[in-house]
Amino acid sequence: MEREPTRVMVAVNESTIKGKPHPSISSKRAFEWTLEKMVRSNTSDFKILLLHVHVVDEDGFDEVDSIYASPDDFRDMRESNKSKGLHLLEFFVTKCHEIGVSCEAWIKKGDPKDVICQEVSRVRPDLLVLGSRGLGRFQKVFVGTVSGFCVKHAECPVLTIKRNADETPSDPADD
Amino acid sequence: MEREPTRVMVAVNESTIKGKPHPSISSKRAFEWTLEKMVRSNTSDFKILLLHVHVVDEDGFDEVDSIYASPDDFRDMRESNKSKGLHLLEFFVTKCHEIGVSCEAWIKKGDPKDVICQEVSRVRPDLLVLGSRGLGRFQKVFVGTVSGFCVKHAECPVLTIKRNADETPSDPADD
Repeated sequence: MEREPTRVMVAVNESTIKGKPHPSISSKRAFEWTLEKMVRSNTSDFKILLLHVHVVDEDGFDEVDSIYASPDDFRDMRESNKSKGLHLLEFFVTKCHEIGVSCEAWIKKGDPKDVICQEVSRVRPDLLVLGSRGLGRFQKVFVGTVSGFCVKHAECPVLTIKRNADETPSDPADD
Repeated sequence: MEREPTRVMVAVNESTIKGKPHPSISSKRAFEWTLEKMVRSNTSDFKILLLHVHVVDEDGFDEVDSIYASPDDFRDMRESNKSKGLHLLEFFVTKCHEIGVSCEAWIKKGDPKDVICQEVSRVRPDLLVLGSRGLGRFQKVFVGTVSGFCVKHAECPVLTIKRNADETPSDPADD
């Protein structure tokens, strides 16, 4: 058995449900599954690489309640988006430190499915872990699916973890 | 961290390339990746569940060089098919015993993608591991894809492991 730790990249994102910066149901579930079922108590055998892809919203249409009266407002919004990503990574990094598994975390901008595959090619993890909403074919037409794309295109093994049925929100496209 | 071992179901099949009963390139790769990168030296933390789905060929058209002159010939062919499956499982079970990870192995008949999902529902593993040929869209139309189906339909996390590029045979539909 080899000595180098198994490098596990976990792609994480924010929830679409509430306003505060907390992880999506599916990425939280994927992360927790990885620690509980794969890392277990063998923390020195694994290294967790946490990637958050920030979807750039240049027009700010996400923030429908915001008022933009000056260039500063746009800068503030961008700062706010950035700190949301940091809060998200802080959540996961704190969990890793609590159980004693080493980790790295970083943020990239762009289309999640493309950026995840690019980062796999660049960082060369042993494994990519993705949460999945487990949407049906009809739902996917409208909301897209990052995991389906990455299973096909990422240059490493891909572990896809669906949400538990009892965690699915009323609108399954939400997460 | 929990005490029960993580139960990892690995679906294995025979190679389509040569006549002798040896594992397919992709299922061998998936199995070896699982031991090397996930189980590592923590053998008591994992249990490997090996499933081989035997594709029933009632007409015997697989065996183009065989001559059927009596009912016994068909029985002999069925016995031969059965022993092929046993040889296949023996290969994987022997490897598990060598490294000291506990395992179970069994054979089912039917359409692999359907049977694998049924067995996941019945056996409730923590994880399903599948080798994949990594075929493109055009190739999939003709040869089908077990992994794509199981990622969508299996009721547990699914780890998909593609063959290494240097292991791909001249006809990528072969395995």
